[in-house]
Amino acid sequence: MSRRKRFKSNKIKPRHEPGRPPGSLDSGEGTPSQFSVIAYGEHEAKKLTPQSLSEVKKLESQYEVIWLDIIGVEDVRMLEEFGRLFGIHPLSLEDVSNVHQRAKFDNYETYSYFVTRMASRNNHLQSEQLSIFHQGKFIITFQEVAGDCLAPLRKRILAGQGYIRKRPADYLLYALVDTVLDHYFPIVDQIGEQLDELDGNLIESNRSFDLAQVHQIRSELLELGRWIRPNREMINQLLRDETSTMSKETQVFMRDCYDHVVRLYESIETYREVCSDLRAYHLSVVSNRTNDVMKTLTIVSSIFIPLGFVAGLYGMNFQHMPELQWKYGYFFVLALMIAIVSGLLFWFKRKGWFDD
Amino acid sequence: MSRRKRFKSNKIKPRHEPGRPPGSLDSGEGTPSQFSVIAYGEHEAKKLTPQSLSEVKKLESQYEVIWLDIIGVEDVRMLEEFGRLFGIHPLSLEDVSNVHQRAKFDNYETYSYFVTRMASRNNHLQSEQLSIFHQGKFIITFQEVAGDCLAPLRKRILAGQGYIRKRPADYLLYALVDTVLDHYFPIVDQIGEQLDELDGNLIESNRSFDLAQVHQIRSELLELGRWIRPNREMINQLLRDETSTMSKETQVFMRDCYDHVVRLYESIETYREVCSDLRAYHLSVVSNRTNDVMKTLTIVSSIFIPLGFVAGLYGMNFQHMPELQWKYGYFFVLALMIAIVSGLLFWFKRKGWFDD
Amino acid sequence: MSRRKRFKSNKIKPRHEPGRPPGSLDSGEGTPSQFSVIAYGEHEAKKLTPQSLSEVKKLESQYEVIWLDIIGVEDVRMLEEFGRLFGIHPLSLEDVSNVHQRAKFDNYETYSYFVTRMASRNNHLQSEQLSIFHQGKFIITFQEVAGDCLAPLRKRILAGQGYIRKRPADYLLYALVDTVLDHYFPIVDQIGEQLDELDGNLIESNRSFDLAQVHQIRSELLELGRWIRPNREMINQLLRDETSTMSKETQVFMRDCYDHVVRLYESIETYREVCSDLRAYHLSVVSNRTNDVMKTLTIVSSIFIPLGFVAGLYGMNFQHMPELQWKYGYFFVLALMIAIVSGLLFWFKRKGWFDD
Amino acid sequence: MSRRKRFKSNKIKPRHEPGRPPGSLDSGEGTPSQFSVIAYGEHEAKKLTPQSLSEVKKLESQYEVIWLDIIGVEDVRMLEEFGRLFGIHPLSLEDVSNVHQRAKFDNYETYSYFVTRMASRNNHLQSEQLSIFHQGKFIITFQEVAGDCLAPLRKRILAGQGYIRKRPADYLLYALVDTVLDHYFPIVDQIGEQLDELDGNLIESNRSFDLAQVHQIRSELLELGRWIRPNREMINQLLRDETSTMSKETQVFMRDCYDHVVRLYESIETYREVCSDLRAYHLSVVSNRTNDVMKTLTIVSSIFIPLGFVAGLYGMNFQHMPELQWKYGYFFVLALMIAIVSGLLFWFKRKGWFDD
Amino acid sequence: MSRRKRFKSNKIKPRHEPGRPPGSLDSGEGTPSQFSVIAYGEHEAKKLTPQSLSEVKKLESQYEVIWLDIIGVEDVRMLEEFGRLFGIHPLSLEDVSNVHQRAKFDNYETYSYFVTRMASRNNHLQSEQLSIFHQGKFIITFQEVAGDCLAPLRKRILAGQGYIRKRPADYLLYALVDTVLDHYFPIVDQIGEQLDELDGNLIESNRSFDLAQVHQIRSELLELGRWIRPNREMINQLLRDETSTMSKETQVFMRDCYDHVVRLYESIETYREVCSDLRAYHLSVVSNRTNDVMKTLTIVSSIFIPLGFVAGLYGMNFQHMPELQWKYGYFFVLALMIAIVSGLLFWFKRKGWFDD
Repeated sequence: MSRRKRFKSNKIKPRHEPGRPPGSLDSGEGTPSQFSVIAYGEHEAKKLTPQSLSEVKKLESQYEVIWLDIIGVEDVRMLEEFGRLFGIHPLSLEDVSNVHQRAKFDNYETYSYFVTRMASRNNHLQSEQLSIFHQGKFIITFQEVAGDCLAPLRKRILAGQGYIRKRPADYLLYALVDTVLDHYFPIVDQIGEQLDELDGNLIESNRSFDLAQVHQIRSELLELGRWIRPNREMINQLLRDETSTMSKETQVFMRDCYDHVVRLYESIETYREVCSDLRAYHLSVVSNRTNDVMKTLTIVSSIFIPLGFVAGLYGMNFQHMPELQWKYGYFFVLALMIAIVSGLLFWFKRKGWFDD
Repeated sequence: MSRRKRFKSNKIKPRHEPGRPPGSLDSGEGTPSQFSVIAYGEHEAKKLTPQSLSEVKKLESQYEVIWLDIIGVEDVRMLEEFGRLFGIHPLSLEDVSNVHQRAKFDNYETYSYFVTRMASRNNHLQSEQLSIFHQGKFIITFQEVAGDCLAPLRKRILAGQGYIRKRPADYLLYALVDTVLDHYFPIVDQIGEQLDELDGNLIESNRSFDLAQVHQIRSELLELGRWIRPNREMINQLLRDETSTMSKETQVFMRDCYDHVVRLYESIETYREVCSDLRAYHLSVVSNRTNDVMKTLTIVSSIFIPLGFVAGLYGMNFQHMPELQWKYGYFFVLALMIAIVSGLLFWFKRKGWFDD
Repeated sequence: MSRRKRFKSNKIKPRHEPGRPPGSLDSGEGTPSQFSVIAYGEHEAKKLTPQSLSEVKKLESQYEVIWLDIIGVEDVRMLEEFGRLFGIHPLSLEDVSNVHQRAKFDNYETYSYFVTRMASRNNHLQSEQLSIFHQGKFIITFQEVAGDCLAPLRKRILAGQGYIRKRPADYLLYALVDTVLDHYFPIVDQIGEQLDELDGNLIESNRSFDLAQVHQIRSELLELGRWIRPNREMINQLLRDETSTMSKETQVFMRDCYDHVVRLYESIETYREVCSDLRAYHLSVVSNRTNDVMKTLTIVSSIFIPLGFVAGLYGMNFQHMPELQWKYGYFFVLALMIAIVSGLLFWFKRKGWFDD
Repeated sequence: MSRRKRFKSNKIKPRHEPGRPPGSLDSGEGTPSQFSVIAYGEHEAKKLTPQSLSEVKKLESQYEVIWLDIIGVEDVRMLEEFGRLFGIHPLSLEDVSNVHQRAKFDNYETYSYFVTRMASRNNHLQSEQLSIFHQGKFIITFQEVAGDCLAPLRKRILAGQGYIRKRPADYLLYALVDTVLDHYFPIVDQIGEQLDELDGNLIESNRSFDLAQVHQIRSELLELGRWIRPNREMINQLLRDETSTMSKETQVFMRDCYDHVVRLYESIETYREVCSDLRAYHLSVVSNRTNDVMKTLTIVSSIFIPLGFVAGLYGMNFQHMPELQWKYGYFFVLALMIAIVSGLLFWFKRKGWFDD
Repeated sequence: MSRRKRFKSNKIKPRHEPGRPPGSLDSGEGTPSQFSVIAYGEHEAKKLTPQSLSEVKKLESQYEVIWLDIIGVEDVRMLEEFGRLFGIHPLSLEDVSNVHQRAKFDNYETYSYFVTRMASRNNHLQSEQLSIFHQGKFIITFQEVAGDCLAPLRKRILAGQGYIRKRPADYLLYALVDTVLDHYFPIVDQIGEQLDELDGNLIESNRSFDLAQVHQIRSELLELGRWIRPNREMINQLLRDETSTMSKETQVFMRDCYDHVVRLYESIETYREVCSDLRAYHLSVVSNRTNDVMKTLTIVSSIFIPLGFVAGLYGMNFQHMPELQWKYGYFFVLALMIAIVSGLLFWFKRKGWFDD
């Protein structure tokens, strides 16, 4: 049942009904978005729950980095206010509210805009779009629904673990992307373990091999690959962007992140190959087994159908059947039958049908 | 029946019978083309139905942007007049009248020429070539037949929605391309849903899986990919063209449009993979099922054919068959039969034929 | 029978027996070549049949463009004379006489050399190498045998249709390449129609699907692709060649020709995919059908073989078989048989074997 | 059993639980690492077992090259001290302790960092990560566990074979990478021999072909390819790095090493193709054999089932069956049976079922 | 039997046991190598059999080009002397003695080094490594064993055919590479003819199709492709090498040689596709045929097994079977049987099982 939603839930959608002006937002009011802010400097970090965007804007003078996390992307009025306050291009706003974007990096003059995708896998694969804006001290993230994989990052900032509090906003940007991509590893790892088990089942017992699971895992890997691949381009583009405001130091970390994405993508590709191999191997195994079954049937039939015919022959009720009166007729027929069986068995043996 | 027209309707055709001079138009008169004009500036927009091309030409001084939409590409005299009036190269005119072009962008010195393809899918996939000329204030579009996907755009211009009335002709050009490509999304989306359903059918009930539909969808995706792919090159080429007269502002929108094309193309590729996977999975399922059927047959035959032989043996009419006179002969034979059956069942069980 | 020649006729051959000096021609005399000349300027065009090459050379001062068409490439003495008169590199001459070249463009200092391939398809696919030399006012073409696809071009020159008479020799070069490539369109188109029909046959009636034809078409497409692909490189190389003497104006036409080659190649690739899809689909259909046949066999056998055994059981001739004396024994057995049949039918139904 | 561990043992792992600060090491103490040093100059080479890293650092003034080999990467305190003493970036330290890296080359300002992978194959494929730091005179290697493939290299240094003692540290770096990659050759060679044997088995006797082994070898090649491929990029990047401190002379050797990697990777790719071909060939062979088995069954059944029916017909006990009273009825029926058999045999022959 | 050696004989080998110093030669003495020299200038060419390398070195002043051909690469002392006399890098010497190199071109400051591979095909595919050194007037070739494909070239030099005597050593280098590659053409051609025949067999008679041969040819093409591909890179690299001492004139010939390699490689790729197609087509044909066989079996069984049951029913020996006493019982049963047969035949017909 959950499977039936697989493609549907990930389907690509037009930004809006085709033909509407670009950069226009859906007019429906939508659920109001929720704000939460983590503002910090080297010596201080605070969690705030502002009521309005302008309130957030005022924090700029007090902190080194202000991370505004907005949950819900359907609140058009909020989006428009956000666009006004931070000078965001309508196309970016539209991309925020249309949650079917590929990962990408758009460098506008006054801000940078990133889209990536947070994945999770409980029973089935799910993903949520994460939009990140970077403008001076501000990092603004947009999520579709509450609940994300960023909790450890928040804890790190508030507890002052690692370097994060000592570095500017672009490091937080890196940390966000890195944390999101890190969460793909356990998913891919889990798939690897499932494939390992399936492979073992197929080789060892030939029994409970679940072809449908291979099929499903392959579909999931297709999906995962589609989510991961554009991230590679995104980070690459970011690293080569000459107008980028990202510090050299953060670029070293970002390059590390790039290595991770490449590693992820290679694993996904490898596992897709493994799925194909399993499928091909299974087909061969089934063909082999069908061949065995057929051989059994053919041996049994080839022996007993002719014998049955001979028996039937002497079960006929003709009045004039000389053999029936012979004294040793019956034993003669039995001997004939044994001869037929021996001959057939010898022939099958020579054909190699008993060698398995 | 409609299927039989699939390839035929999309077949590539020589521009003309091979060997005719390039840039020459078919001499047949063809149906006269119909004109309709939308001319607009920031404060005004008007829909006109001019009788001749020279009439249109005169609108240049009055409006900021003049969009001339021409329906019907077989009217040779009109095409020649159009070429004369706007200074169009014969090769472009030929491309307009030959409706089997790939999407492309040709930059001539005095004008730019675009070809793209409008798709629709009611029962089966159809497409129509849209040629777009851009020259100064003029945007001239050529369609094969009446009826298109541009209605919302016309409404937007006439109603003054969005930015379109405030921007020059190159923005209208963008809006045309964008609207055309936007209409691919619902088609691809619909295919995704069909695949989703097919996948569900195959996994869950194993019953009404329609292999022919997978085959047809795969053909349609092949076709769609062939239409979409050159659009990617076209926009890319347009964005990198240094002599382009497209304003920086419109280029931002065009880049957004490029992202859409990439997204479309990736979805098409993904769905083609899904089709292949479904096909491969179906083959495995059928092999599996054939194996099951064969096992059933083999078990039944291997048990009852030998039994039948034994029964036939004692149905023979030889006069001297000592067993027939034995008092418990019949019961002995019955016991023998039960022993054979038990032995065979045990052997099949050990072979794992009952484990499913 | 004609099929057996397929690969053989297209086989690649060493330029000569391996190890002979490069640029050396086969010493055999070969059939004498035939010359025909079309010489023209803006106001005049004449068809001539010169007896010797030096005669042709003298036409240079009289006409704007001289097209010398030579049929037969085995006349060594003529080739050597040609090389002397026009200053042709021995490697080019060797390429002319070895008719298994890929399409290519070699730019020598004093002349350009083109190789392309004229295709035709009557029952089976055939091709002929066309070598084109361009030197100043001269265009010299070499064909293997008489009969080609250039008749419409000749007519155009002689009748003065289109621009061709007004343009220099490089335009004729373009016209030759364009005419040759144009003749691939009807071939590819015809293949498309055949595939369309095969596809319809497979989907609709499942009856007369001709697998061998798919196999053959796929081979032909492989061949066609091998002929077309290098043309793409050839034209591309020509367009990017900075030392080229081709006029800007002709380059516009050549770019149009490039578009056609790309379109051709894409169609060929698409049709090869269609062939693969047909093959895969056919395999699935056959598997499905085999499964159906097997189910029928298994149902019939599983029902009647056990029944036959029961009947055989009571056909045994033991003297002491109590059931035989029972008054209602026969009817009891009949009832038992009906019960067996019902049970089996119910079981098959539950297994879903009747659902198709 | 060992197979079940295949994918699991090679699974990719997140650097740490997702969300922890980058460059942080696992806090667990881990087993203490073991040091061993080989320090040498042109005239002297010594093997030492220092107790601490600072002891090693002091050797700098005495020798030309100091190779510190560290076994065990879980000793966090040691790693931190190492980072402090040699000025290593936390990300590099993290890569050392996380043993699931792809081969790579990171050029930091004060040192270079290499990761590669040592492979071995006893029953199943295994690999171990080797991290190499190069800083001035120091080469520091990190291995996961004791036991490696570097013994011949150590012997060469201590015995003063070849050039190694006369060259600076970057030559040792090359020698390490080269030795590691050299050990892939016997593995790939062994796989080649196994494939050779499998291929022979399949073609010649059709008997003991082990499909599971092909499946396993293919998986191993997938794994090997995944390990080798990034080495190619690594060496390439090293050779093109303009800031590299590698001497021209060593670069010549490194290029040789690059050739080896390319050769390895090509062999792996080739063998993967061979696996696919074996799989496909096996499937065809099985299909062929199933077809043969079916033909046997069909011939036998088609002959004897009808005969059996005829015999059964005259075994019926109707009182009024005129044929039974005929004098030559029995012989007539025998003749009929022979006629049926002959007819069927002739029909099968014409269908080509006996031609193998 | 010869097949079993296929992969083994081509296996890749480590340059030496892993871990030995690079550039070191195997210490075994090996068979002494044999020298033969062809030295020539425009007016003179001489074949010599020198006893030592220093003798060869002295020829430098007397001739324009000196081609030293050395047979046997295991003579370590000779190789070392060669290295000393001509100033060859140890890595090159090692590559000479390790006969499993890919084709390559190494440009050292004082000499160029080429590796290529001479192929032959008598029953099975074989190859031999040819190393070529070019230094000033000297061309030195190393072969593994006596017997090669260079005889025509030697004859050409000695007889003074073609241009070769008039040109410097780099032309001889070209001639060597060209001659070696030319010898691939008849091999590929022969394979093409075999495929042609196989294809014909499969399509026409469906009889003696040799699947194993397709499998073997495919393996050979894999091998050939592996030998040819690096030659393409080698020549390409040579042509683009700016420090190359190759004259412009020879480069024209080398480019021609490049065209040949491309043509070869394309043919190999095409034939590999043909093999795949044959394999796929064969699989479909076998599936089709199995389906036919099954239909025959099913039709026969479905008709006669039920009939046999009916016959068996009235062969039972119950005392009270009223039908047996009916006067026309027998004829009634016969009629029933005819009805059953007609019904089944009609049903099969409607299912389309008789349409082939």
